[in-house]
Amino acid sequence: MEKDITIYDIARDLGVSPTTVSRALNNHPAVKEKTKKKIFQAASDMGYQSNIFAANLRSKRTNNIGVIVPSLNSNFQASVLAGMEKVANAAGFNLVISQSLESIEKEIANTRSMFNSRVDGLLVSLASDAENLAHFAPFHKRGIPVIFYDRIANSDSSTGVAIDNIQAAQIATNHLIDQGCKKIVHVLGSTNVSVYSDRLKGYKYALMDKNISFDQDQIIVLSDINEEAGEKIVAQILKMDPLPDGIFISNDACAASCMNHLKQKGIRIPEDMAIVGFNNELISRLVEPKITTINYPGFEMGEVAMKNMINYLDEPSNTTLHNTNKITLRSELLIRESSLKKKK
Amino acid sequence: MEKDITIYDIARDLGVSPTTVSRALNNHPAVKEKTKKKIFQAASDMGYQSNIFAANLRSKRTNNIGVIVPSLNSNFQASVLAGMEKVANAAGFNLVISQSLESIEKEIANTRSMFNSRVDGLLVSLASDAENLAHFAPFHKRGIPVIFYDRIANSDSSTGVAIDNIQAAQIATNHLIDQGCKKIVHVLGSTNVSVYSDRLKGYKYALMDKNISFDQDQIIVLSDINEEAGEKIVAQILKMDPLPDGIFISNDACAASCMNHLKQKGIRIPEDMAIVGFNNELISRLVEPKITTINYPGFEMGEVAMKNMINYLDEPSNTTLHNTNKITLRSELLIRESSLKKKK
Repeated sequence: MEKDITIYDIARDLGVSPTTVSRALNNHPAVKEKTKKKIFQAASDMGYQSNIFAANLRSKRTNNIGVIVPSLNSNFQASVLAGMEKVANAAGFNLVISQSLESIEKEIANTRSMFNSRVDGLLVSLASDAENLAHFAPFHKRGIPVIFYDRIANSDSSTGVAIDNIQAAQIATNHLIDQGCKKIVHVLGSTNVSVYSDRLKGYKYALMDKNISFDQDQIIVLSDINEEAGEKIVAQILKMDPLPDGIFISNDACAASCMNHLKQKGIRIPEDMAIVGFNNELISRLVEPKITTINYPGFEMGEVAMKNMINYLDEPSNTTLHNTNKITLRSELLIRESSLKKKK
Repeated sequence: MEKDITIYDIARDLGVSPTTVSRALNNHPAVKEKTKKKIFQAASDMGYQSNIFAANLRSKRTNNIGVIVPSLNSNFQASVLAGMEKVANAAGFNLVISQSLESIEKEIANTRSMFNSRVDGLLVSLASDAENLAHFAPFHKRGIPVIFYDRIANSDSSTGVAIDNIQAAQIATNHLIDQGCKKIVHVLGSTNVSVYSDRLKGYKYALMDKNISFDQDQIIVLSDINEEAGEKIVAQILKMDPLPDGIFISNDACAASCMNHLKQKGIRIPEDMAIVGFNNELISRLVEPKITTINYPGFEMGEVAMKNMINYLDEPSNTTLHNTNKITLRSELLIRESSLKKKK
């Protein structure tokens, strides 16, 4: 790499004093607009980099905010990141992103790397096998804020941003019961993840409220609920006797894939089996029949989590974040054809 | 923020010499394993941060690689980022990500921010209105590598990683002609973007090869080809006289949305109109009929672009990247029901 260009180089090149260059680059009123413009142009032409690095060393700020996601390859996480970046960019922060790929070892390694590269704050959606949260302790110890989103932790030291997954799942299951379903299968990810354990609770509460007994055999748990899993899930469902008449699946891509495989086996949706998904992904609106789902505001979640982070960084003495344990966003059931057994 | 924990604090706490702490943290063989373990534990408990910052100042490396994407909220970009992160993480680099939101002004601002925060390299998929590439000049001047991917630039100073969009579009259009289509509409994004101007070329070449005359009225250009655009595109198509019998749409989400709106208007797919999409997104496999598309390897593109970046950073004297102007990845036509007028 070439030698750093300094203000002395620019000064020599233009025949002005280093003080003038320094003042111009800091937009000092004592320097004429014309001179400023000339200096800016020269700085740009010569490849001058303002010494943010050294400035950071003094201010102890990097203006980098770390984000650890379970997987970048997810519609939901993509929306969240888009929301986060919008807010961070406007406030002059950069996003440093890594993925845990659902592995606690990788999450720990990424957390350490973020800590050592001195991010100003950390936003995390936990890996599915993250049972222990000791790897965030160094952040708490140094007063670096950690905010969990979507897959949040039960921790007194951090704020979590999420929807009420219990309530959302209860509403979804209630809807299937209202449509006349007697045997409802629930497909979900590892119950180590708060999101899924909460949804399982909501499903159980809904059954309980209507005096339908809970049957463990109607719960299908998969480490990865995605498109590929559809075939396997449908094979398991078709072995049930009697067949279920309702299925509540914890994401839309998987729900669409299951619907496809069920239709291939001659099952009519919703007449034979009603389907409800989760997330309101694009796919839920474009398949046939359109899938009833829970609208899960990813972009807004990203915005809210990042706004809280930046508010805290701008004013650490502000006690709002300290005292906030959980921020709950609104979610809602979007009723479409895939679950409408009773035509309106 | 609290005072930094130093090796002196750890030494005092454990009653060992600062030299021992320093050696232990650097994994020096002179320190016993048991002592090392004790020191590591204390460092972690006390919230010690290795001074990467100061080390970076010496080595002139940040281990951060910048990525500027047009939009984070895109299936394709999410796959690319997942591939990039996998390679970067394994090599000990962090990703710093920002989005241009298709605005050249924002791209310029993001580029400047990446430059000033001293990323070791920059990966860019260009904004649709990026006609001028002057904002990358400071990187070239300082020998910081810039690699374009997907939406690449015609620049002698940078390497581009992409598929052969001309060829891919030619194959897609040829397929529609082979299926008996006489009037083929092509829906694409702004032709300022290399990706789209190349596809338009491929479409024209295919028509020319079969002596079908090109008609500008059959080209629908939209700034944003997505789900929302479907209704508008279909309205425009249904005004054509005679109606087209084939449509080639530059992404699958938009193709699925168009197909939905066409079906609502009583158009049979593929009998009345055959449809070909682009990207091989999940949605192309889950709608009915399944959409014929070009398989566009996003994850692999991310891996290849990042591997080239890291190879260069590890060995800047290696001339491979200097001399490589373009890396072309394989793509292929995946034929499905949406375009099969002639049943096999």
